[in-house]
Amino acid sequence: MICVIHVNPWLIFEKTNIMTIKQYVPLILLLCCAVVVTAQETTPTPKLNLMPVPASVKFHPEERLAVDSSFKVATRGHSDARLETGISRFMRRLEGRTVLTLAPGLAADDQTTPLIIHCEGPGKTIPAVSENESYRIDITGRQAMLNAPTVVGALRGLETLLQLLEADRNGYFLPGVQIDDRPRFPWRGLVIDVARHFEPMEVLKRNLDAMAAVKLNVFHWHLTEDQGFRVESKKFPKLHQLGSDGNYYTQDQIKEIIAYARERGIRVMPEFDIPGHSTSWLVGYPELGSAPGPYTIERRPGIFEPALDPTREEVYKFLETFLGEMAALFPDDYLHIGGDENEGKQWDRNPAIQAYMKQKGIKDNHALQAYFNTRLLKILQKHRKKMIGWDEILQPGLPKDVVIHSWRGTAALAEAARKGYDGILSNGYYIDLIQPASQHYVADPLPADTTLTPEEAKHVLGGEATMWGEWVTPETIDSRIWPRTAAIAERLWSPRNVTDVNDMYRRLAVISLQLEELGLTHKKNQDMMLRRLVRNDDIGPLRTLVSVIEPVKEYRRYQMRPQTMLSPLTGAVDAATPDSEAARKFSWMVNEFLNDAPRFQLYRTELSQMLADWQTSGASLGPVIDRSPALKEIKPLAQNLSQLGETGLEAVSYLKLGIPPPREWRETSLAKVSEAAKPHGALEFVVISGVKQLVIAAAELSRSSSR
Amino acid sequence: MICVIHVNPWLIFEKTNIMTIKQYVPLILLLCCAVVVTAQETTPTPKLNLMPVPASVKFHPEERLAVDSSFKVATRGHSDARLETGISRFMRRLEGRTVLTLAPGLAADDQTTPLIIHCEGPGKTIPAVSENESYRIDITGRQAMLNAPTVVGALRGLETLLQLLEADRNGYFLPGVQIDDRPRFPWRGLVIDVARHFEPMEVLKRNLDAMAAVKLNVFHWHLTEDQGFRVESKKFPKLHQLGSDGNYYTQDQIKEIIAYARERGIRVMPEFDIPGHSTSWLVGYPELGSAPGPYTIERRPGIFEPALDPTREEVYKFLETFLGEMAALFPDDYLHIGGDENEGKQWDRNPAIQAYMKQKGIKDNHALQAYFNTRLLKILQKHRKKMIGWDEILQPGLPKDVVIHSWRGTAALAEAARKGYDGILSNGYYIDLIQPASQHYVADPLPADTTLTPEEAKHVLGGEATMWGEWVTPETIDSRIWPRTAAIAERLWSPRNVTDVNDMYRRLAVISLQLEELGLTHKKNQDMMLRRLVRNDDIGPLRTLVSVIEPVKEYRRYQMRPQTMLSPLTGAVDAATPDSEAARKFSWMVNEFLNDAPRFQLYRTELSQMLADWQTSGASLGPVIDRSPALKEIKPLAQNLSQLGETGLEAVSYLKLGIPPPREWRETSLAKVSEAAKPHGALEFVVISGVKQLVIAAAELSRSSSR
Repeated sequence: MICVIHVNPWLIFEKTNIMTIKQYVPLILLLCCAVVVTAQETTPTPKLNLMPVPASVKFHPEERLAVDSSFKVATRGHSDARLETGISRFMRRLEGRTVLTLAPGLAADDQTTPLIIHCEGPGKTIPAVSENESYRIDITGRQAMLNAPTVVGALRGLETLLQLLEADRNGYFLPGVQIDDRPRFPWRGLVIDVARHFEPMEVLKRNLDAMAAVKLNVFHWHLTEDQGFRVESKKFPKLHQLGSDGNYYTQDQIKEIIAYARERGIRVMPEFDIPGHSTSWLVGYPELGSAPGPYTIERRPGIFEPALDPTREEVYKFLETFLGEMAALFPDDYLHIGGDENEGKQWDRNPAIQAYMKQKGIKDNHALQAYFNTRLLKILQKHRKKMIGWDEILQPGLPKDVVIHSWRGTAALAEAARKGYDGILSNGYYIDLIQPASQHYVADPLPADTTLTPEEAKHVLGGEATMWGEWVTPETIDSRIWPRTAAIAERLWSPRNVTDVNDMYRRLAVISLQLEELGLTHKKNQDMMLRRLVRNDDIGPLRTLVSVIEPVKEYRRYQMRPQTMLSPLTGAVDAATPDSEAARKFSWMVNEFLNDAPRFQLYRTELSQMLADWQTSGASLGPVIDRSPALKEIKPLAQNLSQLGETGLEAVSYLKLGIPPPREWRETSLAKVSEAAKPHGALEFVVISGVKQLVIAAAELSRSSSR
Repeated sequence: MICVIHVNPWLIFEKTNIMTIKQYVPLILLLCCAVVVTAQETTPTPKLNLMPVPASVKFHPEERLAVDSSFKVATRGHSDARLETGISRFMRRLEGRTVLTLAPGLAADDQTTPLIIHCEGPGKTIPAVSENESYRIDITGRQAMLNAPTVVGALRGLETLLQLLEADRNGYFLPGVQIDDRPRFPWRGLVIDVARHFEPMEVLKRNLDAMAAVKLNVFHWHLTEDQGFRVESKKFPKLHQLGSDGNYYTQDQIKEIIAYARERGIRVMPEFDIPGHSTSWLVGYPELGSAPGPYTIERRPGIFEPALDPTREEVYKFLETFLGEMAALFPDDYLHIGGDENEGKQWDRNPAIQAYMKQKGIKDNHALQAYFNTRLLKILQKHRKKMIGWDEILQPGLPKDVVIHSWRGTAALAEAARKGYDGILSNGYYIDLIQPASQHYVADPLPADTTLTPEEAKHVLGGEATMWGEWVTPETIDSRIWPRTAAIAERLWSPRNVTDVNDMYRRLAVISLQLEELGLTHKKNQDMMLRRLVRNDDIGPLRTLVSVIEPVKEYRRYQMRPQTMLSPLTGAVDAATPDSEAARKFSWMVNEFLNDAPRFQLYRTELSQMLADWQTSGASLGPVIDRSPALKEIKPLAQNLSQLGETGLEAVSYLKLGIPPPREWRETSLAKVSEAAKPHGALEFVVISGVKQLVIAAAELSRSSSR
């Protein structure tokens, strides 16, 4: 793990900028524009849209390299097919954004070629945790230079160049900068669970493209679950034939994804989750289970009893063959064996297993699973794979070359590190739980207050965002992964002190747009889903509602709105997305407005417009919902949207006029707001606290006036 | 060819309805709502959203079959895997729209199962032109019955059922109807040219889904061109290796597409366009050409000289082997050999060819191509394929079992039919030429005024929409094909007298939305492209502009804005789509408004809003374009949008007040409108005539007042 601490160039002017420009730049521009010039500064301070923020950036504010139809790339030093296809993708994306036709292929290096890429070597043949991903970019008015020790470093640099592209009335350009960059952590991953819901090849490919765009480097492919077995096994074909409903990847497709990821400098680590989470294995091979079977593919979400029988030699023989097949298929150094959430109920009830434990002196299920893992480790070692598994595998006696994947947290990770185990963090990065990016952003695998010694800290390799698949389909998965995962990617790549949440969100909006050019559907599918729900093009009012609600957090969705793995994920809860931008904007405006007391002028117009839009949209949703039974479940939300708008407008009005509201207004209004805070259809408003603030402020105005 | 003439149930009340409801139903509802109830009718007359319109529909207005979570399907008679996966797809789509979780699998036929499908037999093993696609649907309040002689007929009926699904505050339901349906023409196709631009598997698959949704049954796969050779040949691997930039379909992928199409009752007919259009063949095998070579893949659009040498035996030996390989790969009865647009310039210049012609008494290039085709026909006959080619192949002496594909028109088609040749029409269906659906809709392979005898008319098998690939990418192709191709599908399926353009557009809007559920991107990609162009989310003004402009028609795009096959298709011209709905709406409102003289009240508010939106959007686009150099080419359009809005508002204002404009206003205004009519960036306004009408009407008001 390389740990570089540099000053974050974005932090310096952030606060003052926002405070000074807000009065004359509309908010939408403030959130979107690439370059902000402040009146106080004599030279403009460029605001870049890089995500993750590089380790070090220096500006040459006077310099800019024009990007026009003569733009070309030449290579120096090492070159190979991976670099050249990477450059070709870079050029296509540059063309796509600029609508310029660029000459195909590489240019001759005639000293004045606009972009020179100097690569020292190919890097690892198979992407590995020890890959050198560093690069350096120098852009002057004359030329851009990208230097990297490996092709992967060069690919990372090309993504930075695409993020650097800017434009003004004189055309497209790359700003004058000098960037020295390298990752803080060498393991920066995304788990995609393709087992609960299957995800076709194109979904994986576009997500690999997006991962590369934000410099993630591990695709952790969660291939097996109670609810599905998604990889073709030639040795045990009943695994995929009976465990997948026909939705699995052929070995050719697996190879295609591995090659696709390698092209982008991304490792592909498979996970075969055992001994629990294994119902789908047992459909075809019930004899591996700890209870007699027969088994059927699990359709519900949750934790289930079926588990492999760790006491029978046939099970190890099976695993030896199966994992051997998979070890040959997946070239990565690591193989993830899951190991989580096995409660051992089948073991408790199986007399043969109980007898075996007694005989071997295995005192409990934890010890039995440790025994299983020890056997598994030997199999993996034989196939030259390093074993990685979830927290639960960390049991006394576990050899030190096993990696701990922590869903429990940094404390567990630190404890493992102290004991000498490598580890990665996923606690804090559960993107399926619908938390805002800001929350994921503060989760640090190695927090500033860590008590680990530098030597121990080296065991903390990085982290992985986890896209668990219970409630995502090919239609919605992108919106659950992106753009929030870009914030996690930044946490894992950028220096520890890059922590400005506002600036993160500013850049996240830009990056989110750029991800669309790679085919990601996180933005464009929402309108489509709303059109399907309302059954016509007139989605304005529903869009307003959806912009200020979010699916309920953590594991409440299933409790409130039970569905199976076969249910349609096309409802309002699926169309709604996490981390509402409109809610952030609202909350921002409320704060500015209230801080502007007693004038109450700042953002008053925008706030009133927004609240009025809620009021009218809520009202006009009534007939829309009557025509669309699938929306019936959110009827109360539509009514509450109107209420929130009305209440908010009343508060703004009192504050504006400085007239105290009637005594009972505070309680009545807060009751309305509380009523609106209740979820419906597993959706809830995320603007409640802002409206409450307005009500309370108006009511306080009343008290102070009446004093 | 089966020709059924029934009364079109949609025509009966259409005209009167529109005239009576317009005063109290907002236009948006008029365009979108599923059921229109007129004041004059005692019982509601349902307006269905079926496309294509079935051969016969009878209504049971009192009956409706509820679709709720107990909805199930049972089969009677024949069943097979194709039917069952078809039913499964049907159920998933039903779930997607209704957000209901339906029980998986088929139900037992317990007499009360909500939907019974009774299929008499499997139909053709390989989809064929002689397939019986008829079906019958009976829906009562108790049950829906779908009867069909073949599985393909049942699949067609399932699509109709999905289009029948309606909803109101009581829930989803199928209306009480009895439908007897069968196609007018047995050959209803879509050509997708994957050669000029390659289209990945998922693009083909989603378009096959869309084809099935509107009952098209031939995917004509245009696989080779000067600009690309897109199919793997194991016999002559240099064809795809050197002729495709690596963008080709493996034979496994070809089989996958054929199977996918067959599942949906769609034939897959390949086209290998020879002897012209063959540059990409010659890159790997220059010895087949009529000039020595070497050849490189053509990057420009247009007609090029390279052609196979029809005088050399090696060429026929090559074709014998190659077409044998392809004949085995593609199971369809027909193989398309192109044969178009060979100007024979290479032949003219080749002394050996000239000598050969002299020796054999071949008098000109037409005769030489006829000779080539005769040889080709023998090869195809040997491989049991029927030959089909473009108009040009119809030369004296052509055997009668060859099918003519007419790009020239119905007259050429009729002439061929009179001579005894089967034929299909594509003239009128060139969807790449950016014409409105209304124009394609009137093109009839067998027009009402045909002079063909019924016996001769049987030779007219149908038609094909042609998606030529010069200016489409995976990102834009759906918007060029859909929804307009649904209107062509209706022309080829529905009775000849189904010709109401307004009703076609009403239904097209509904079907267009439904196509989205299949993954089609024709609607959702536009906003994404606009976001990329303006580089943020604030696309409102640009969207307003794009809603009233269209790419220039026919072949003017390349003349005005030359690009190559390697250029980015991400500009404003690519984001704009054919057949502007906003322009139709504007034109409608202008007519209603002007017909409401001298009151000028009808739609005045809506018209003024629209014009004001143009005015302000045009103005606010200035700074947007300054930040986005890729939009520079449409800066004049933005200015003209403002001008059109302003001019229109002035006209409306004069008309409203009944005040004549100043004398010079007419000329000044018309000059502005004429200026706005000029294309920029290969885009043009399609609201010009409406604004002109307003100006002239206002000016006439002036004259009549001043008289």
